[in-house]
Amino acid sequence: MKIKSFAFIGGDRRQLYAAQSMQSEGYKIYVCGFDKPCGDWSFESVSADEAIKNADCIVLPIPLTRDGSTINAPYSTEPIKLDDKLAASFSDKRVFCSMKNKLLSLSQQWKQVRLYDYFAREELAVENAVASAEGAIEVAMREYEGTIHGSKCLVAGFGRIGKVLSKMLDGLGADVITAARKKQDMSMIYALGYKPVDIKNLCDLRDIDLVFNTVPALIFGAHTLALGCKNAIVIDLASAPGGVDFDSAQRLGIKAIHALSLPGKVAPKTSGEIIKNTIFNMLEED
Amino acid sequence: MKIKSFAFIGGDRRQLYAAQSMQSEGYKIYVCGFDKPCGDWSFESVSADEAIKNADCIVLPIPLTRDGSTINAPYSTEPIKLDDKLAASFSDKRVFCSMKNKLLSLSQQWKQVRLYDYFAREELAVENAVASAEGAIEVAMREYEGTIHGSKCLVAGFGRIGKVLSKMLDGLGADVITAARKKQDMSMIYALGYKPVDIKNLCDLRDIDLVFNTVPALIFGAHTLALGCKNAIVIDLASAPGGVDFDSAQRLGIKAIHALSLPGKVAPKTSGEIIKNTIFNMLEED
Amino acid sequence: MKIKSFAFIGGDRRQLYAAQSMQSEGYKIYVCGFDKPCGDWSFESVSADEAIKNADCIVLPIPLTRDGSTINAPYSTEPIKLDDKLAASFSDKRVFCSMKNKLLSLSQQWKQVRLYDYFAREELAVENAVASAEGAIEVAMREYEGTIHGSKCLVAGFGRIGKVLSKMLDGLGADVITAARKKQDMSMIYALGYKPVDIKNLCDLRDIDLVFNTVPALIFGAHTLALGCKNAIVIDLASAPGGVDFDSAQRLGIKAIHALSLPGKVAPKTSGEIIKNTIFNMLEED
Amino acid sequence: MKIKSFAFIGGDRRQLYAAQSMQSEGYKIYVCGFDKPCGDWSFESVSADEAIKNADCIVLPIPLTRDGSTINAPYSTEPIKLDDKLAASFSDKRVFCSMKNKLLSLSQQWKQVRLYDYFAREELAVENAVASAEGAIEVAMREYEGTIHGSKCLVAGFGRIGKVLSKMLDGLGADVITAARKKQDMSMIYALGYKPVDIKNLCDLRDIDLVFNTVPALIFGAHTLALGCKNAIVIDLASAPGGVDFDSAQRLGIKAIHALSLPGKVAPKTSGEIIKNTIFNMLEED
Repeated sequence: MKIKSFAFIGGDRRQLYAAQSMQSEGYKIYVCGFDKPCGDWSFESVSADEAIKNADCIVLPIPLTRDGSTINAPYSTEPIKLDDKLAASFSDKRVFCSMKNKLLSLSQQWKQVRLYDYFAREELAVENAVASAEGAIEVAMREYEGTIHGSKCLVAGFGRIGKVLSKMLDGLGADVITAARKKQDMSMIYALGYKPVDIKNLCDLRDIDLVFNTVPALIFGAHTLALGCKNAIVIDLASAPGGVDFDSAQRLGIKAIHALSLPGKVAPKTSGEIIKNTIFNMLEED
Repeated sequence: MKIKSFAFIGGDRRQLYAAQSMQSEGYKIYVCGFDKPCGDWSFESVSADEAIKNADCIVLPIPLTRDGSTINAPYSTEPIKLDDKLAASFSDKRVFCSMKNKLLSLSQQWKQVRLYDYFAREELAVENAVASAEGAIEVAMREYEGTIHGSKCLVAGFGRIGKVLSKMLDGLGADVITAARKKQDMSMIYALGYKPVDIKNLCDLRDIDLVFNTVPALIFGAHTLALGCKNAIVIDLASAPGGVDFDSAQRLGIKAIHALSLPGKVAPKTSGEIIKNTIFNMLEED
Repeated sequence: MKIKSFAFIGGDRRQLYAAQSMQSEGYKIYVCGFDKPCGDWSFESVSADEAIKNADCIVLPIPLTRDGSTINAPYSTEPIKLDDKLAASFSDKRVFCSMKNKLLSLSQQWKQVRLYDYFAREELAVENAVASAEGAIEVAMREYEGTIHGSKCLVAGFGRIGKVLSKMLDGLGADVITAARKKQDMSMIYALGYKPVDIKNLCDLRDIDLVFNTVPALIFGAHTLALGCKNAIVIDLASAPGGVDFDSAQRLGIKAIHALSLPGKVAPKTSGEIIKNTIFNMLEED
Repeated sequence: MKIKSFAFIGGDRRQLYAAQSMQSEGYKIYVCGFDKPCGDWSFESVSADEAIKNADCIVLPIPLTRDGSTINAPYSTEPIKLDDKLAASFSDKRVFCSMKNKLLSLSQQWKQVRLYDYFAREELAVENAVASAEGAIEVAMREYEGTIHGSKCLVAGFGRIGKVLSKMLDGLGADVITAARKKQDMSMIYALGYKPVDIKNLCDLRDIDLVFNTVPALIFGAHTLALGCKNAIVIDLASAPGGVDFDSAQRLGIKAIHALSLPGKVAPKTSGEIIKNTIFNMLEED
């Protein structure tokens, strides 16, 4: 069956950008849950019933739900229930969602639905890393009284975000120290032109201006903060509880910021395009 | 005579950072005109008389004055008069200032003062270009709904700021088009890896996401804006009146921002260090 | 036991650079198998017996052997037998080698020796990737009649060498297209600023100036070569038989070069230091 | 008059590449002085008379002449005289040449000819800087036993070649120190991410691996060489007599190479295209 239409139910502005990008490629778009002010768009928000009835595919938001019982829909005046009735209405549709396992745990009814977890896709994670890295740099530029150029930046972790962030900071002219655990990662960090440091030895560092943590483990404890980061701005990108001892940071007078969900906040347009690309990749492979 | 002390009279926080950086190198510092809240500093604001009497060198702010009769001193509760009495009190001092010609035009008395225009120094201008370029990128990140990475950026002008901004945008992964007037500048733009365009042909461009203007001449008129920049954020870094037809931009629904005096706003610490370095260069050459 | 001395038996000039670098850090060095002219060095080549007797650790070359019965020793006038007698002489030593499995297959005697395969270490492979990438660029510069800057370069594969080579070519100002198989690798290629292409679609490319293959599978067949690479220089870095149909290339008049073992050839000094660092890493972990 | 044809008289392979590139854009091409083997080309070498008679424009080589009496034509079996008869045959043609002043000094006859000195054009000089920089890197890669990546490189001079070379070495992962005379150049060097050094203080440097000189003045004397460059490869790109004391270098055992005319040697194709672009720029402005 040739896909011709998509219904976007709930979510924030990146869903609208995804919808807009699909519309510009000729797809018919229905949106539901955007009746509060959220910018100028060419679509009108309709009811969930109408949206679902008309569309070949459904797109649910990131995150899917915050309370476990309604769809995450910050721009909707009415809650959209995440119940068996909704699941039943999806029976002959392809449904693109995040948090698929959560959905399956809610009720047996969801097992009947053709669910595609686009948020679990590796290519979306990689592309979101670009938006996260830029968002982190935007925070750093706003908070730091010096220039990134010439500053001493520590990037902890050499996963997706760490790789992109190291490159961008280097591209802005920072002195980039990247911390990793494995010897081969340290070798690659050196090969790509940054200064490698073993994550076990963070407390040997001194005079860091900006810390970017991407590791979801408590690696910035009081000791490490006090020794090398006492004049630094610390930006933690790791999901809660993060990798920074925020209490100690406060006690030490260190500004520490937990910056989460950056892609949707700082770059909803790019995030929307990434969602669209990932959904199209999944349809192509289907 | 060996210089041992500096008095900073008026100005914004970058003067305090310059003072702090000198203090950390062992100089005795006096500040005047900072009795309003302006952050935590180790100096106390004293009277102009006391500051001047004790110091070997005086540092006046950027800009020197906004009204022609008092020193620019936004953190001072009392105005500091820029009069013959002040000039007389400087008679045996080295005075570092901006807008030296303005000062000389105010009264004959200033001709007796040893004035050093640190703001007219080329190396300060080059180093400030880094802070201006970063400030422009910070504005772009805040205003643009996409990522700089992958966006199509137009940098108009290949002077100090244009050179640094092109490099930084390229370092973030943007598609950088740099406009210049001279053939050899276009060749150098190409040699450094950006796409050159003749500034006469800006109206041939299409689908620009971000415009950064550094040229102080009206090069972004209604026609050029409407053709290539209709979905762009336009950031004008050129001093007033700038290079953008802001009325037309508004009529076309284009977001255009006149971003001036960025170094002092976005990076007072780095700006302060640049001021210190420039003053020390001038003393060394003296 | 504190290690104080190393014996290098056989190999090429990178072994001598490794030895020199260790010597400069205070270790006592013995070398064997370097009595032919091989540059100016501060060591004298001694017999295997003498070298082994005096040293705490033995370093065997890369590759260990070419014929299966003697140590690879191009600068030795006499062959050095790789036999049970040699193995027995190593009984109380730490022996750093390449091709450990080959050695173990030669005879039971080798099972008694404390063998450390430094060539199998991931960090050595990563660091050698830098030398391989530079070596490939050196070949390209020598063979290509244009400049790398502004040329259209295809890097096939996004492993260690592909990552470093893409970055270096980009750093020289080439237009870099990097081919990978996985969607997330293509996303990372895009995130890092290169143009991604699916390795299945190489035949869609046109007008490539320089091809660098790192994939050890026949991906440059007659069809792909004829369509997109007919004016290209093709440099194959994949181990024999490589990834290029050399016969077809020749028939099509395409210059194709199988460039193997580049690190030892183009950068023996850096390769020697990598060997030293890897051996020291292994001793530290021991 | 619309230009339809070009005659290339003398020169090396970059002239043939320029001719080939013009031919591919639809111009009729005549070449003279290429009857010795010089690669596979689609043109036949004809006599000067035939070439000149048929062409609207004449292109003379770089350098124009080596002996003052014949055209520089290394691929010609017969000398091509640079005499009044040749000048007379050019009377109604546009003649693109290098060394225009030399030509005018030869005889009054040349004053009647419409001479255009393409080699004096700034944009050609800038674009040739790319080829010179790459050529210098090729020499460095061939001569140096380490990798450029991780090496300590000194670039003396921040003119066209210095700017491009600093960027390329940085792009390969070298530690780049760039020497200049003016404070604002040093500030720009810092702004672009390299380490600035005052050219007066070269003798303070230590442990340089690779020296690239672009300054046509003796700045690398015995003292500077002995202190900081004693293990370096020194590559002098400045025109004769260059900026290096070659005798002292030899005495000190330092490998010093005077690398001249690199663009034509290492990248004749790109050089040919630059010549074509410059000539077309001049015709457009004419």
